Amino acid sequence: MEQIKNYIEINKQRFIDELFEFIKIPSVSSKVEHKQDMFTCAGKVKDFLLKAGVDKAEIMSTAGHPVVFAEKIISKSFPTVLVYGHYDVQPAEPFELWKTPPFEPTLIDGKIYGRGSSDDKGQVFMHIKAFELMNATNTLNCNVKFMIEGEEEVGSTSLEQFCIDHKEMLKSDIILVSDTGMIAQDIPSITVGLRGLSYMEVEVTGPNRDLHSGIYGGAVANPANVLTKLIASLTDENNHITIPHFYDDVEMLSNEERSEMAKAPFDLQQFKKSLNIDEVQGETGFSTIERTTIRPTLDVNGIWSGHTGEGSKTIIPSKAFAKISMRLVPHQNPDKIAKLFEEHFKRIAPPTVKVDVRFLHGGEAYVSPTTSKAYLAADKAYTDTFGKKPIPTRSGGSIPIISTFEKVLGVKSILMGFGLESDAIHSPNEHFHLTNFFKGIETIPMFYKYFGESNSK
Amino acid sequence: MEQIKNYIEINKQRFIDELFEFIKIPSVSSKVEHKQDMFTCAGKVKDFLLKAGVDKAEIMSTAGHPVVFAEKIISKSFPTVLVYGHYDVQPAEPFELWKTPPFEPTLIDGKIYGRGSSDDKGQVFMHIKAFELMNATNTLNCNVKFMIEGEEEVGSTSLEQFCIDHKEMLKSDIILVSDTGMIAQDIPSITVGLRGLSYMEVEVTGPNRDLHSGIYGGAVANPANVLTKLIASLTDENNHITIPHFYDDVEMLSNEERSEMAKAPFDLQQFKKSLNIDEVQGETGFSTIERTTIRPTLDVNGIWSGHTGEGSKTIIPSKAFAKISMRLVPHQNPDKIAKLFEEHFKRIAPPTVKVDVRFLHGGEAYVSPTTSKAYLAADKAYTDTFGKKPIPTRSGGSIPIISTFEKVLGVKSILMGFGLESDAIHSPNEHFHLTNFFKGIETIPMFYKYFGESNSK
Repeated sequence: MEQIKNYIEINKQRFIDELFEFIKIPSVSSKVEHKQDMFTCAGKVKDFLLKAGVDKAEIMSTAGHPVVFAEKIISKSFPTVLVYGHYDVQPAEPFELWKTPPFEPTLIDGKIYGRGSSDDKGQVFMHIKAFELMNATNTLNCNVKFMIEGEEEVGSTSLEQFCIDHKEMLKSDIILVSDTGMIAQDIPSITVGLRGLSYMEVEVTGPNRDLHSGIYGGAVANPANVLTKLIASLTDENNHITIPHFYDDVEMLSNEERSEMAKAPFDLQQFKKSLNIDEVQGETGFSTIERTTIRPTLDVNGIWSGHTGEGSKTIIPSKAFAKISMRLVPHQNPDKIAKLFEEHFKRIAPPTVKVDVRFLHGGEAYVSPTTSKAYLAADKAYTDTFGKKPIPTRSGGSIPIISTFEKVLGVKSILMGFGLESDAIHSPNEHFHLTNFFKGIETIPMFYKYFGESNSK
Repeated sequence: MEQIKNYIEINKQRFIDELFEFIKIPSVSSKVEHKQDMFTCAGKVKDFLLKAGVDKAEIMSTAGHPVVFAEKIISKSFPTVLVYGHYDVQPAEPFELWKTPPFEPTLIDGKIYGRGSSDDKGQVFMHIKAFELMNATNTLNCNVKFMIEGEEEVGSTSLEQFCIDHKEMLKSDIILVSDTGMIAQDIPSITVGLRGLSYMEVEVTGPNRDLHSGIYGGAVANPANVLTKLIASLTDENNHITIPHFYDDVEMLSNEERSEMAKAPFDLQQFKKSLNIDEVQGETGFSTIERTTIRPTLDVNGIWSGHTGEGSKTIIPSKAFAKISMRLVPHQNPDKIAKLFEEHFKRIAPPTVKVDVRFLHGGEAYVSPTTSKAYLAADKAYTDTFGKKPIPTRSGGSIPIISTFEKVLGVKSILMGFGLESDAIHSPNEHFHLTNFFKGIETIPMFYKYFGESNSK
């Protein structure tokens, strides 16, 4: 512990400077114009890893953006940890709401502001620096592999095939991931559940062109009006999703499990205040924490039609679009849910319009046991660095690839996230606390230590 | 009649050339970058009028774009016709859908293509040329005034004040307007009704920033979902508007009037085919023509929220917006309707969001009697030039200034429109048939003749 803290203390400023270089690259995976930035960013990750001391690192192509793979194999008798993370980031829009430019990282009040600072560049970088530290101090007692991808924010489209193609190369005993959060800076937690996702796009077509709303208004179905009716009908007055068979596979937790969950610290007033809302809204019969973790959802992520600029234009739009995603819980299958959605949406659409439904991407939910060697090692590591036991929590978010890893590679993951809910990931002014960043670099080597010890063959 | 036809025949090519000069000026009133073009265009109209033989013509400033006023006063014993029209045009976007450049008028198959060719430059020009003709042939038996404004496409913002300020100058017996259409090239019609308008913008605010839909999804009201519910509830399963008291002032036409309307030629199959829709949709109990003319409507003209670009972004948007306009029928007051809308919308909004409702602009509906001297004169004029009686029709569109004229100047309008529904006004490839253009120049002098005779003091 002392050695770890010393190493961090001495190299603090360099770590921050290097992380800034990483954040500066606008590696927005969803935009074609950033294709070159994706390559630049992958190259940067490779360089970081080589400098940190891996035996080899390479940029491996996929059907989409490349994956950076690296490894340091010490001994066959040691267990192998596969670090997974992503170097791609969400789009930064709306730019005008950023107080500092999203790709010019800025340190304010102990927080690094910038797109990707928390999700996931800052957290990936903790692992690279923790590895550098163990390597430099000769304390590494595990083999280490890194798989840092560039498509997490667009559904990890190519990664399943990558895993299938490179099963042997990716062989490991545990997959270590920092792409989640913890309850609070002084309340460590380990994520043991994730929601799945089915992300849809719908297109409603009315007349073959925008029409004059005076001349045609009242006599022709307006696709924007129709779309609002269709979406509105997808949830009822109890905020229950109305798609037939949607809940068929949803597991109901026992009262015991639910009361255990209810013990996690949560301040509803503070929650509402932080979002500036007067009331929360969710499925009748469930608490806010349950609504965000053990229950599925249906949210409009985007909607657009007609005249969206200033002033007034009196048209009946020809088309209306929406992006609608559903968060899923364990046992719900994303493909099945996407199919149920599509069938239902087409069934309820009136004959006055045409609808098209596209399944953009999806992923399964995940649960991990709190009795595994990896969980116990992480539990000890947090206890050492935070002075208290971490709380096992479920996250409402999705890292669909975690289920894929289990399916394809047959390996479980341990989710040691150091972000905070207030980090504004996916939003303007995303940031990462330096405290959390350094706590991560401190805790990760302790995990390796305990995991290595418990797995010594 | 013979004299009129001869004059047109001799001057045909010059009329077309001059109209082309008029269309060439990109007088887009809604765009700041065209401010100078608006002045240039007003100057052009003034020149046209002076050359055509008015006593005086001037460019008169307003708070917005200038009005061109001109007059020829022959005798106090003659009635006065005030010609109203507009020299401004709609924006030409989307440019890529135009087959010929919007501001380079092109004659193809007997049609003039160009922005404003039909709405309203071509129609204004008919009046200038009809006046030139009557002046040149010494057949004018009315005093004539022209008021050609530059803000019709942006709601005639300054014209009410202009009328108030120049009541005496604008004194007249009838206002003659060509800014509407006729049923078909061989079926003349006179517009005797226009719908009014209340144009609203709504803004629904949920959390103070875009949220991660995984971490918060299910527990926080999504303003986009909420907006769809609010809009969906504004119309019921019979496409009846649900705003309380919305229909209070709507006049129900007698069965006699309705069966008279039903005689107007209308081909539903052709209507559906031209829009590429399988079914029409509208208020239960009314025909398509009734739905677009004697019944009020509620249409979403635009809606937007969250991620509207390519790919997927998993957010709960902070805000959702919509532009919603209602077409009104005679006796419905636009301010009252706007207030009913606002009160209702705020009342139905759940406490989980905040809503803001803005009234962008509005105008009253209009009906004109078919027994007035002006109507009868127009009826005779069309009968002379088309060989058949014109059909009185109601238009679903709105020209709010027509009601203002009646209110402020105390003068009725007669709507002798020569456009066709297929002219694609407000759309790419707007055009005006030469046949209609010349038929207008032929019919207008006959209107003056009969109107002058019936009003001789």
